[in-house]
Amino acid sequence: MSHVLALCGGVGGAKLALGLARTLPGEDLTIIVNTGDDFEHLGLSISPDIDTVLYTLAGLADPERGWGRADETWRFMESLRALGGEDWFQLGDLDLALHVERTRRLKAGETLSAVTAFFAARLGVAARIAPMSDDSVRTILRTSAGELAFQHYFVRARCAPRVDAIRFDGAATARMSPAFRNALARNDLGAIIVCPSNPYLSVDPILAVPGVREALNASAAPRIAICPIIGGESVKGPTAKLMQELGVSVEPASIAAHYRGLIDALVIDRTDAANAADVEREGATCVAAATLMRREDDKIALAHTVLEVARGLRARDVAA
Amino acid sequence: MSHVLALCGGVGGAKLALGLARTLPGEDLTIIVNTGDDFEHLGLSISPDIDTVLYTLAGLADPERGWGRADETWRFMESLRALGGEDWFQLGDLDLALHVERTRRLKAGETLSAVTAFFAARLGVAARIAPMSDDSVRTILRTSAGELAFQHYFVRARCAPRVDAIRFDGAATARMSPAFRNALARNDLGAIIVCPSNPYLSVDPILAVPGVREALNASAAPRIAICPIIGGESVKGPTAKLMQELGVSVEPASIAAHYRGLIDALVIDRTDAANAADVEREGATCVAAATLMRREDDKIALAHTVLEVARGLRARDVAA
Repeated sequence: MSHVLALCGGVGGAKLALGLARTLPGEDLTIIVNTGDDFEHLGLSISPDIDTVLYTLAGLADPERGWGRADETWRFMESLRALGGEDWFQLGDLDLALHVERTRRLKAGETLSAVTAFFAARLGVAARIAPMSDDSVRTILRTSAGELAFQHYFVRARCAPRVDAIRFDGAATARMSPAFRNALARNDLGAIIVCPSNPYLSVDPILAVPGVREALNASAAPRIAICPIIGGESVKGPTAKLMQELGVSVEPASIAAHYRGLIDALVIDRTDAANAADVEREGATCVAAATLMRREDDKIALAHTVLEVARGLRARDVAA
Repeated sequence: MSHVLALCGGVGGAKLALGLARTLPGEDLTIIVNTGDDFEHLGLSISPDIDTVLYTLAGLADPERGWGRADETWRFMESLRALGGEDWFQLGDLDLALHVERTRRLKAGETLSAVTAFFAARLGVAARIAPMSDDSVRTILRTSAGELAFQHYFVRARCAPRVDAIRFDGAATARMSPAFRNALARNDLGAIIVCPSNPYLSVDPILAVPGVREALNASAAPRIAICPIIGGESVKGPTAKLMQELGVSVEPASIAAHYRGLIDALVIDRTDAANAADVEREGATCVAAATLMRREDDKIALAHTVLEVARGLRARDVAA
């Protein structure tokens, strides 16, 4: 059996991560999560994308809201508001325990990798979930409203400011997490999957960690991305708006161009099948499939498709 | 109108503090609270006695439980337990906001005095509530179970270990809080009231701050304590058990002896009236009154009694 490495941001990526986790034995799956969105708020260390993946794979995520936990309550926030605290970032009562305990463990000297592995085990998640790095990387956006840390742009300003440029503070000196390095070094690595997360905000921070691009470039394993753009729009979040602001055409070929040299194949939605030739001109094999993941069945089906594409690419390599 | 300074620990003291707050205009009352029970837990700065006084005066305290907030919920604790966090100290969802916001403000450089004043104003409390000191003082008990920080003795070990000695780490270099110093220096100070808190665990830490004993000794204002022992038992908490372990007879005269030179009068319960002569032998005027505070009426009535005793002592001083 071969190992699968998935690179993942928050909500969109976590859907495919769930599909993969429902399809593969836990020991065959490593999910490397973006930490560029992490921030310190109210003295707490918050890792939104890691938490989304954790909650999703543990079956605790809120299916409607898209973030946080199901059956959440908000009494802490009510009380904080009454006491004059900052209330623009919603922290549910259940969710809060994760942040408090993570912050305590990090301050006691544990790495984010160790804390994440502990929580995953505690919540019964079999797949390996790890941050891209245990070092601090912070996504900063240069916008029409000035420089904004990621959560200030994403949550506080609701993605309204126009984005000119994105940088990842700390990335230049960050080291890949042990799980990331180990997965990339495996002889039995059968696929590297770039989940349908925002390429600019969720995947680029991962690619900015030194050595990641080189390792992807050099990997013998098939590398497959899933396009987060369907019919010229983002499935979720500000991907399309951001592409427009960055002067990029909102179509699958732009995603293929963005990942040029890093992926062998791009899975696009069936409704965009006409774009296949444009995608292939960017150097990626194009596969059209149902990529919209509404129900758990959709997530598992897409995971199967992606793993099938990987098998096909491996067979082609062997034949060549 | 003269100013009143009350020295106060947690629950028992807060009851009289409420009575005083219902009797006096806010600007005429300073309540100085023990911070020897303060501790750092889960990365949060917790001040249990200050919070009890704050919640009590704001009308938010839980009347049954004796600590924390009314209509509290415990979802954070449930979630923390599931994540393997320390769960011996109960933090309600509403209560937690106070600890998170206080910790944030302290880390940002505010003093505990400033944070406490901010919360009091925010919660509509007119009286001045202030810590005894903005410096760290920590009550440490030498017990049959080894050395225990206060909350470990009080909450985690439920006061079960036998206590040999009590010390207040940091007290020797602590400075009185500005509100404490200012109240003691007022020309119009009309009474210093030692609330019916545990003398050894709640009042002694206040007296251990350099300059406090001297200021009480030298004060022209009448100084009145309320006896926390009724009928040979503590009204609440481990006072009687502790007195036995420290080899002190569990009776009002022991309280008078403990405060000798620091108080002019001790208010004891009417049911202990036979002990009046023993109390007076310890150098304090003894006043018997109804000291058990069950309902708000009882608290206000005791406040009236204490203020009346103060007026009587002032009149005696003028006559002398």
